[in-house]
Amino acid sequence: MRTAIVGASGYTGAELVRIIARHPNLTISALAADRNAGREFHEVFPAYRNLDLPPLKKFQDLDMSAVDLAFCALPHGTSQEVVAELAKSVPVIDLSADFRLRDPGAYENWYGLPHSQIKLQQQAVYGLTEFYREQIAQTRLVACTGCNAAAGLYALIPLVAEGAIDLDRIVIDLKTGVSGAGRSPKETSLFAEVAEGFQAYSVAAHRHMAEFDQELARFAERKVHVTFVPHLLPQNRGILATIYVVGDSAAIHRTLSERYADEHFLTVLPLGSHPSTRHVRGSNFVHIGVVPDRRSGHAIIFSALDNLTKGSSGQAVQNANVMLGLSETAGLEFLPVVP
Amino acid sequence: MRTAIVGASGYTGAELVRIIARHPNLTISALAADRNAGREFHEVFPAYRNLDLPPLKKFQDLDMSAVDLAFCALPHGTSQEVVAELAKSVPVIDLSADFRLRDPGAYENWYGLPHSQIKLQQQAVYGLTEFYREQIAQTRLVACTGCNAAAGLYALIPLVAEGAIDLDRIVIDLKTGVSGAGRSPKETSLFAEVAEGFQAYSVAAHRHMAEFDQELARFAERKVHVTFVPHLLPQNRGILATIYVVGDSAAIHRTLSERYADEHFLTVLPLGSHPSTRHVRGSNFVHIGVVPDRRSGHAIIFSALDNLTKGSSGQAVQNANVMLGLSETAGLEFLPVVP
Amino acid sequence: MRTAIVGASGYTGAELVRIIARHPNLTISALAADRNAGREFHEVFPAYRNLDLPPLKKFQDLDMSAVDLAFCALPHGTSQEVVAELAKSVPVIDLSADFRLRDPGAYENWYGLPHSQIKLQQQAVYGLTEFYREQIAQTRLVACTGCNAAAGLYALIPLVAEGAIDLDRIVIDLKTGVSGAGRSPKETSLFAEVAEGFQAYSVAAHRHMAEFDQELARFAERKVHVTFVPHLLPQNRGILATIYVVGDSAAIHRTLSERYADEHFLTVLPLGSHPSTRHVRGSNFVHIGVVPDRRSGHAIIFSALDNLTKGSSGQAVQNANVMLGLSETAGLEFLPVVP
Amino acid sequence: MRTAIVGASGYTGAELVRIIARHPNLTISALAADRNAGREFHEVFPAYRNLDLPPLKKFQDLDMSAVDLAFCALPHGTSQEVVAELAKSVPVIDLSADFRLRDPGAYENWYGLPHSQIKLQQQAVYGLTEFYREQIAQTRLVACTGCNAAAGLYALIPLVAEGAIDLDRIVIDLKTGVSGAGRSPKETSLFAEVAEGFQAYSVAAHRHMAEFDQELARFAERKVHVTFVPHLLPQNRGILATIYVVGDSAAIHRTLSERYADEHFLTVLPLGSHPSTRHVRGSNFVHIGVVPDRRSGHAIIFSALDNLTKGSSGQAVQNANVMLGLSETAGLEFLPVVP
Repeated sequence: MRTAIVGASGYTGAELVRIIARHPNLTISALAADRNAGREFHEVFPAYRNLDLPPLKKFQDLDMSAVDLAFCALPHGTSQEVVAELAKSVPVIDLSADFRLRDPGAYENWYGLPHSQIKLQQQAVYGLTEFYREQIAQTRLVACTGCNAAAGLYALIPLVAEGAIDLDRIVIDLKTGVSGAGRSPKETSLFAEVAEGFQAYSVAAHRHMAEFDQELARFAERKVHVTFVPHLLPQNRGILATIYVVGDSAAIHRTLSERYADEHFLTVLPLGSHPSTRHVRGSNFVHIGVVPDRRSGHAIIFSALDNLTKGSSGQAVQNANVMLGLSETAGLEFLPVVP
Repeated sequence: MRTAIVGASGYTGAELVRIIARHPNLTISALAADRNAGREFHEVFPAYRNLDLPPLKKFQDLDMSAVDLAFCALPHGTSQEVVAELAKSVPVIDLSADFRLRDPGAYENWYGLPHSQIKLQQQAVYGLTEFYREQIAQTRLVACTGCNAAAGLYALIPLVAEGAIDLDRIVIDLKTGVSGAGRSPKETSLFAEVAEGFQAYSVAAHRHMAEFDQELARFAERKVHVTFVPHLLPQNRGILATIYVVGDSAAIHRTLSERYADEHFLTVLPLGSHPSTRHVRGSNFVHIGVVPDRRSGHAIIFSALDNLTKGSSGQAVQNANVMLGLSETAGLEFLPVVP
Repeated sequence: MRTAIVGASGYTGAELVRIIARHPNLTISALAADRNAGREFHEVFPAYRNLDLPPLKKFQDLDMSAVDLAFCALPHGTSQEVVAELAKSVPVIDLSADFRLRDPGAYENWYGLPHSQIKLQQQAVYGLTEFYREQIAQTRLVACTGCNAAAGLYALIPLVAEGAIDLDRIVIDLKTGVSGAGRSPKETSLFAEVAEGFQAYSVAAHRHMAEFDQELARFAERKVHVTFVPHLLPQNRGILATIYVVGDSAAIHRTLSERYADEHFLTVLPLGSHPSTRHVRGSNFVHIGVVPDRRSGHAIIFSALDNLTKGSSGQAVQNANVMLGLSETAGLEFLPVVP
Repeated sequence: MRTAIVGASGYTGAELVRIIARHPNLTISALAADRNAGREFHEVFPAYRNLDLPPLKKFQDLDMSAVDLAFCALPHGTSQEVVAELAKSVPVIDLSADFRLRDPGAYENWYGLPHSQIKLQQQAVYGLTEFYREQIAQTRLVACTGCNAAAGLYALIPLVAEGAIDLDRIVIDLKTGVSGAGRSPKETSLFAEVAEGFQAYSVAAHRHMAEFDQELARFAERKVHVTFVPHLLPQNRGILATIYVVGDSAAIHRTLSERYADEHFLTVLPLGSHPSTRHVRGSNFVHIGVVPDRRSGHAIIFSALDNLTKGSSGQAVQNANVMLGLSETAGLEFLPVVP
């Protein structure tokens, strides 16, 4: 199956290339990157010099007739028009935030601009594969989850669905690597502004909170308002969510273990163990741990994933596999890189 | 005033040297470091080659008659005997955990060994200067607070004392730099085990929790059991505590601002702002921020300090200043190093 | 083909597992790790929790009858006896320094202990695959090159063989990531001793210099004494060698380009370009660049590889492929991880 | 003495604030930062929240009548006009490259634009304090050296002046921390582009080479063309120059030791020792080491300094002290921060 990658010169674009170039069933037939149009991909990412890839083009110059599925890895806002255009000819996997929120009003609230593709929005399936597998198999537009949202939702959805925790007392303290901020030059992403420092950002106001609201409400069948504080880690990749809940730790652990027993990419560690981002770095795995608090009836849940892989591009390929009827794990078996 | 530093070859020992060597009223008259006895200090820390320092000796070879005050920067457990010996001749500032807990039973519970200096323990004053100033001025033994405990207590003590927050719903999610683990070789402190990775440690079981229990109970006048999860940051210095509380954010901010209005080293940021460890790195300052959660009646408090400075050696010198009747800020005005 | 990994709990052992677990023709049938015998591999490296691996055993408890080839990833000195024992039953790939030097006197000089397996030494083939392919295919013992030596030799061997540079004026300034120092706890490998600092080590005295002496002399057919200074980088993986030579840069570039035109893992960048360790991280590729100095007749050559992959475990698997008659690139096509 | 800092919102500007705020004889009377005019300095650098500083203004709004000396920390090119304006009223210390090269033609060659202040250029003194002390004391314009140039020149000037090394065989392999690239957002300075990677930049073409050419020729009394390759380190601060020379290591060591015997900020380590950037981090010290190569008649010289301190802002204050007739070390005695 031939794929196109639109927005190929960002980090999620490069991660798509890394994965698809070794995928047994997918090939890369077209690459778009507006600012870098006319260059070879390896001029933008010299790490992939050894690959035989099509040149970077402007989006409008892509030949979509030679493509079976498109990945769109553009920033939110700019994605809408491009996805709409792509969706006319091929199934689309969008890695941006533009089609994640089912409610256009919520989109406008959180992202500060009206949604221009409301009809298309209604067809989009939220890309958390393990919970939307059947719908993904039948749609032509998947909206991949936010990387932070994915880390939290994997830990929480089974628990809110089963009523295993107090829905009004959920605190998500999340830490994420810098690559999540993308490759565009910003003062806050400079090495000298990040290394040897640590702080929160978008405190209690991060846009991925809209995904928590939407998905937790859906599975809890009532409103759920988490407290959510993300922090920026001085490292390239990796998200660790530390989640404080009120509930029985053994029941929580059992609920998660049972729910994910057959999920290839989701590992629930033994009760009392907790994960590190280094244990999933560069892979499509999620490691979840549950540790009882010393106060009985309270528990701490940890969820670790790689923001560029399971948090975006690996997830995207997993969804593509489902959409295209391939083995869901195809091309995603590469292991974490340690150290 | 002449000081001795016992345990000079660890990171807190080196930080004491960095501070005292430029202190207007203190000098370094004796340095003890058992394993490195016989060497020059700059052989162990070449950064301090330009200083004129006494050679490293074994503790028992120190001439305490030429010393006015001693700092003891040994690991817990080994400190007790040494502090007892030092205390016979001079006032002592202990940077270990050995004399922090007033209840010897609590010490035995948390540290796994009986306390051998129970009488001396009863004279020890907890070294959180801003709350124990008067007692510090009158004692001969100060037990400096744990670095993690300091970060949390500065944010919490005024609030529990004033009843500004729900005492049963305090969650402390703390992140600390690697230097807090000390200089002894351990696999978990290796660069290749820490860099590009992030995880919690001692989840809900860290020994500094005993200090939270002790101090919060004292100021709240009832038991307070926080949930406390520390994490290891891939950076050398700095602690950020993110504290989730139930209470009115404006009242919380006002309480902290008023309490610390006259405290030189404690800065409460404007309501809604939050600190970074990089803003206090290498300095004796603490930055505290209060941000309202989107759920009214909930707030997030951030507390940032440098674990080696305000978290241990800077705090120790501040306490020494108080004990010796010097200006409390003497020698501690050096600024953060950015970047 | 079934393989055994002896010394599986170090970084090169883990990298062998990462590679072989996804190798199309090799399986892992036995794992030895003396200190960790009795544990599961994923207890030592939780990143590999999802693999189905044999338990860690003591070396002497391995059943070699079920093994077709053994990798030995022990420290130098301890390898000799183990390799001798392994070699009785299976072909062996040794990742240590013990069998790299053909001259036992050189071994004793550089490593400070006499060689105990002189006869076996004589059969060992130096594991720089691209230069010893035929001998590797026919031997039962391959001694993988040192990671630093590999970085330098790939740049230099074609040039000294062709007489393209002045043999008496070669300066190798090399920088290597921390994982090259291994996983055993040492003060100099601590995060707080490495991060935010940079320095040389083993200046003009590093043991890999013995490999430069041996191999450059062989290909130059005369003695060649390089100046060699390695430095320790604050990063996990990657080696960059910056090599200063006297010779015509265009001729140097042409010589290298021609020599490596058909070598899958060796890429010579366009004249004037130079590589980064990040472009080969986690992969088996080597990137080589040649840049003319402003002084005509002088050139700078850069060579970048991943010390754990092409510098040791990837190289080892490449050699195993050759020994076993498999495709040389089998299992080694995984791409660099960026960022 | 009252000072102004123009270009206060960059890293060298912040480092000037850090130093001057604690200087016994200097005060900060004016701060200019065009883009940030109207803000408080601590809004740009929250680390300096505790200082009482004037607000940031546009350059043209500064009241120079209340200033005794100005520091100009603007990028090259933009500095010329500003320095010319400042120089009308006060002595000026320029931290940019604009007045370093005595030959306007060389400036135009290396920086790609004609010099607009040729007359002022002729009065400028090169700011390498230890070699231009007397001229600095008498001029009204000091052009601080480039940070990379400083690292190399401290090691080389005494040797070329004394003829202790072969002038035609000097190789400078230099590694520098990221803060040297400044605070403006550039893709190449992003955390995710720098961390866990290492590469050279401006190979054999870096502009600081013009300073080597100028200064080495002056002290050698003939042309000297070094080979110079800088590399970018994944760390905030610090430069290490590794310099390969032909000459007798003992004579080299003796020459440097004698030359710097009375220089407060320059330390020559014992023969055979070599420095780390971590040993000078955050300080105004330079550590120089000489190690004999195994090839007799060849030596390796190491020079380590902090690019923001001795490499720019500390050097600038040292020059200000000289210009103003203060003690040369005033305000510069702060020690390295370790770790």
